[in-house]
Amino acid sequence: MWLSKNAIDLKNWKQLFEESGEALDLERFTAHVNAASLPHAVIIDCTSSEKIAEKYEIWLREKIHIITPNKKANSGQQKRYQLLQDLKRQHNVQYLYETTVCAGLPVIQTLRDLIQTGDQIQKIEGVFSGTLSYLFNSFDGRKNFSEIVREARDQGFTEPDPRDDLSGMDVARKVIILAREMGLELNLDQVAVENLVPEALRDSKINVEQFMAELPKYDNEMNEKLIQAQQQQQVLRYVGLIDPTMGTRVELKPFNLTHPFAGISGSDNILAFTSRRYLQQPLVVRGPGAGPEVTAGGIFADLLRLASHVGATL
Amino acid sequence: MWLSKNAIDLKNWKQLFEESGEALDLERFTAHVNAASLPHAVIIDCTSSEKIAEKYEIWLREKIHIITPNKKANSGQQKRYQLLQDLKRQHNVQYLYETTVCAGLPVIQTLRDLIQTGDQIQKIEGVFSGTLSYLFNSFDGRKNFSEIVREARDQGFTEPDPRDDLSGMDVARKVIILAREMGLELNLDQVAVENLVPEALRDSKINVEQFMAELPKYDNEMNEKLIQAQQQQQVLRYVGLIDPTMGTRVELKPFNLTHPFAGISGSDNILAFTSRRYLQQPLVVRGPGAGPEVTAGGIFADLLRLASHVGATL
Repeated sequence: MWLSKNAIDLKNWKQLFEESGEALDLERFTAHVNAASLPHAVIIDCTSSEKIAEKYEIWLREKIHIITPNKKANSGQQKRYQLLQDLKRQHNVQYLYETTVCAGLPVIQTLRDLIQTGDQIQKIEGVFSGTLSYLFNSFDGRKNFSEIVREARDQGFTEPDPRDDLSGMDVARKVIILAREMGLELNLDQVAVENLVPEALRDSKINVEQFMAELPKYDNEMNEKLIQAQQQQQVLRYVGLIDPTMGTRVELKPFNLTHPFAGISGSDNILAFTSRRYLQQPLVVRGPGAGPEVTAGGIFADLLRLASHVGATL
Repeated sequence: MWLSKNAIDLKNWKQLFEESGEALDLERFTAHVNAASLPHAVIIDCTSSEKIAEKYEIWLREKIHIITPNKKANSGQQKRYQLLQDLKRQHNVQYLYETTVCAGLPVIQTLRDLIQTGDQIQKIEGVFSGTLSYLFNSFDGRKNFSEIVREARDQGFTEPDPRDDLSGMDVARKVIILAREMGLELNLDQVAVENLVPEALRDSKINVEQFMAELPKYDNEMNEKLIQAQQQQQVLRYVGLIDPTMGTRVELKPFNLTHPFAGISGSDNILAFTSRRYLQQPLVVRGPGAGPEVTAGGIFADLLRLASHVGATL
């Protein structure tokens, strides 16, 4: 960490950080941010660390606002989620996490606006993973699925170990966050996740290279799913679904060519809210839902929302 | 008008209004709302009246917040628009109008978030009229255009005089509002509008019934446009376009079947933001963009935003 009382020169921050940086001490860090001389304090957690997320409780109690794209706190135990929401209200402090789902796309705020103004959400369905979006938007029968995975990995579109994408856990975490925003109480183990990693390759003793070498053996299975879909004039999409009556699921599912999900391209995310007000035609948000620039933009927008809440004129 | 110091019984408001209502007196109305005993005052203008919009200046000067779906003030003279924006900042008062474009869909706030966080908007394009969306989503060659207009009118999907939709002026007003939000300075007469009312039928001396009777004579023209588009595997959409370099236009335009605009149905609105951050793949918002319920929801969301700004915990 590097604590500085004065503004940091952003041109040379790397060098200055190396010169003046010290070992992380979260207690001193918190005290520094929450200086008595400052009217408002905010910590923006840009890690994906569980250890940092564990501090949110303390920070909210100390009336420090929190803004974060870190999914860990909100997708962890329901009990902790509820506690953070309660603390936020009790201490009149903001806890903003728009970028935990689809980065800068207007998802959490849109959902919150609907709920807070009395709408009833009937269903949220969407493609929440840019990587899985890309894989299935590309999977049209010209190449085997394993080839597409390999190419995507070579281009850096997947996690270093593509199983981290294919397992569906990242999508499940986003689904949990939206479900809880809707008022549902559930934990990760209650989401039915279709894991796209063949069962025999899930063992962590199998390293990435072995996994990549074995994956082509399962191409037939995936091809059959595609052919079945194509025979019905459909395409495959890996979607998350939250439906208070039907349950919460993450799965590979065929969609008609006229469905909005069929039309996405590249690594687009897409999200459809069906509600009492948006019943015949859902409210749909679509676009890139990952990447440093759009995520930073979304975090900054949350910061401006906080500034407005504490009285700033924008 | 009906001024009451106590909460109004919403079950019997109509009867009570008839009994206790009096002639509108905007000065007394304003004084009543802006009572010294209340910490905050807001007027929600749910009219489409120019006369009410003329009062915004006074209200902002008196530090009364304004929330409105009324497009008149923001799409009128650039000078007044600028004055209202300046007054808002000077007096630290909120002037919120999310619902002037696409009702409850997250459009203005999304655009504002992008701009305020440093993104550069390159283009906004969209289908902004539910009525024109419906007409062209239905116009696939099976029926003549005039028949579709007649059926839509019979079902109440158009204005009583469909020329108010077909003229494109409603779309032009929305385009102006978005363009100004982007920082462009322009007035309505600088928007190039493709008026879909045949020139010979624009005269206000021609009444609605005469217009409806004459419209079939122009079906050939419209059919030709459709056939031309279909030969290129395209569909027709009536869109508004804001492009700081290409200009601001409202026009009937062909789109490829793979374009997001081609996929809309019913009376869906759709809007694509192309920016430095959302360059290869735009940020797209789609859904019903008119109607009392979704508009009321959007107005209520603006009211909650205002409440948050003045310190409420939501």
